[in-house]
Amino acid sequence: MPVASTFSFDQRKRRLSGVVAIPVTPFDAHGAVESRTYENLVDRLITGGVEVVTPNGNTGEFYALDEAETRHCLELTVKAAAGRASVVAGVGHDVTTAIRAARHAREAGAELIMIHQPVHPYVSADGWVEYHRAIATAVPELGVVPYVRDARIEGGLLARLGDAAPNVIGVKYAVADPVRFASVARDAGLERFTWIAGLAELSAPGYFAVGATGFTSGLVNVAPAISLEMFHSLRDGDFRGAMDVWERVRPFEEMRAADGNANNVSVVKEALAQLDLCRPEVRPPSRVLRHGERRLVTGLLEKWGLH
Amino acid sequence: MPVASTFSFDQRKRRLSGVVAIPVTPFDAHGAVESRTYENLVDRLITGGVEVVTPNGNTGEFYALDEAETRHCLELTVKAAAGRASVVAGVGHDVTTAIRAARHAREAGAELIMIHQPVHPYVSADGWVEYHRAIATAVPELGVVPYVRDARIEGGLLARLGDAAPNVIGVKYAVADPVRFASVARDAGLERFTWIAGLAELSAPGYFAVGATGFTSGLVNVAPAISLEMFHSLRDGDFRGAMDVWERVRPFEEMRAADGNANNVSVVKEALAQLDLCRPEVRPPSRVLRHGERRLVTGLLEKWGLH
Repeated sequence: MPVASTFSFDQRKRRLSGVVAIPVTPFDAHGAVESRTYENLVDRLITGGVEVVTPNGNTGEFYALDEAETRHCLELTVKAAAGRASVVAGVGHDVTTAIRAARHAREAGAELIMIHQPVHPYVSADGWVEYHRAIATAVPELGVVPYVRDARIEGGLLARLGDAAPNVIGVKYAVADPVRFASVARDAGLERFTWIAGLAELSAPGYFAVGATGFTSGLVNVAPAISLEMFHSLRDGDFRGAMDVWERVRPFEEMRAADGNANNVSVVKEALAQLDLCRPEVRPPSRVLRHGERRLVTGLLEKWGLH
Repeated sequence: MPVASTFSFDQRKRRLSGVVAIPVTPFDAHGAVESRTYENLVDRLITGGVEVVTPNGNTGEFYALDEAETRHCLELTVKAAAGRASVVAGVGHDVTTAIRAARHAREAGAELIMIHQPVHPYVSADGWVEYHRAIATAVPELGVVPYVRDARIEGGLLARLGDAAPNVIGVKYAVADPVRFASVARDAGLERFTWIAGLAELSAPGYFAVGATGFTSGLVNVAPAISLEMFHSLRDGDFRGAMDVWERVRPFEEMRAADGNANNVSVVKEALAQLDLCRPEVRPPSRVLRHGERRLVTGLLEKWGLH
C-alpha cells in the first residue's frame, strides 16, 4: 500500500523543512548490501527524531550501487520507516532508468524522489528542464526534489520546471555559494519550493540566513541529536546556538571534505563502525580510512560523548 | 566468435595511435536507437579510413542511454566494423555494471574497453586504482583504456594500475592542460601506454608535441577525411599542416565547446542531419540546435565542401 496518497503535497513540502538524512549503505563481509543493518540504521535515524530519509543519495554511495541494489535499498528504507518518516528516493542516470526507479519507488511506498544532477557532460538549459520534467511527470503522485550542483542553473529554469511539473515541490541546492543560492531561490520563487541546503551542517547557517528551511546531512547517521540541535537552533533563528553546534561538528565535516571529498562517506562509516553500528567498508572509487585517520575519528566521537 | 583473440596487445596498442572515432548514437522519430543508421554511420567511418571506433562514448550520449541500449550499440558497432576496425567499448557506472558491460563487449567481439571516468563524487587515489583494476582484471583478454578527466590523477596511479592490470595498454587523457599531460605521461611511463589526446582536434597538436600519438574525435563522424588529414600531419611531425586543418575545424569545434559544451553532440548530429546521414535529435539534458545555430552549421559544411 503506497504511503504516498496519505500525505498532501503541502505536508510533504513542510516536512522537507528539517534535517533531510542521507543514510549510508552498509555492506557485509562479502561486499553486498547488509539488509538488517540498513534497516537498523534507518530505524535509529527515525527514533532519533529524523522525519525525512533519502536512500540512494551520495552518502548512500548511489553511484557505486547497481540498479537492483538501489531498488533493494529503497525497499529497505520504506520498510524500516514504516510510515514514521517521509522517504525521498534518490534517482538518476539516463531518463529511462530514472523513470523506472521513480515508478518503483512509488509502488514501494516512497512519497518523494530526489533527482540527482545529470552526470551527462553536455548539459543545455532547455535540456536540463526537459530531463527533470520527463522524470517528474512520470510520477505525478510523488513530490520531486531536483538536486542542483551546477552554478549555471538559473532560478528561471527552476520556475519553468515547476510550471511544467507542479509536483516539483523542493530544491536541494548544493552549490558552494550562498549569494548564488539566495538569487536563484528568489528568481525561482522563495515560497514556491522548499529550499534545502544541500551541503550539510557547515553551510546550513549561511543558507538558512538567506532562505533555506531544511538541510541535508550525512553526519546525522552518526549523531542524530547533533544535527537536530542545529536544525532547531536555525529554525528558531538562534544563529549563535547553531554556530555552537557548528564548532562541534567542524573537524568531522572537514575530514569528510578534505582532498576533494575523497573520504566523505568513509569518515561516516568509520564512525558508525566504531559505534558498532555497521562495517567501515566503502566501495571504490572511495576507500576505507587509514590507521591515523581512524584515530582522529575516535577522538571526535569521544568529544561528542559517543565513545 | 570474439575478434579479440586475433589481435595481439601490441597490435591493439599501435592501433590506438590514430584517430579514435566516437560515433554518435542516432535516434528514430520515436526516440529509440536507429540500428540501420547506426551501422551505416560506423561503416562510413571505417570506409573513410578510421581504424578504431568507440561506441558508448560521450559523443554517443553514453549517459543518456540505458543498459540495454548500450549493449545494443556495442553489438551494432561490432557488426558494422566486421573485423575492419578495432572496437573499444565504452563502459562505466558502478563496478558491477561496468564489469557486466565489459564481459558483454568481450562476448560480442570487442577488442578493448574504455572505462569512463567514475561519476562517483567521492574519489580517493587508492579507490580510483581499485575501481579500474576491478573492471580491467575481469576481462584480461581485452585491452583497457582509462578515460582520465580529473587533473588530480597522478602518473604514479596509472603506473600502479598498469602493474595491477597489465591489459591496461592506453590512456585517454582529457584534462585541458598539456603540461599536466606531459608530466603524467612521463610519470606513468611514456612507452608503457599509448597516449590518446582526449579533447579532440583543437587540442591534438599541443598534446602530440609532448607525447600523444592518437586523438579522439567526434568531428570525424561528419568529415573523416579532415580528422585523418590532421592525424597524418601530426604523425609525420608536420605541425604546420596540422594547424592548417586546425583553422579549418576551429569554428565547428568552438560551437561544440561553447556554453560548457552544452551543444557538443547536437552540433555533430545537426551536421549529419544536413548531410542526410541521421536525424538531429539528441536526448536531454542536451537539446537540438535552434534555427540560427543550424544556419551556422550549414555555413561550415559549405566551407568544407560537404554541402
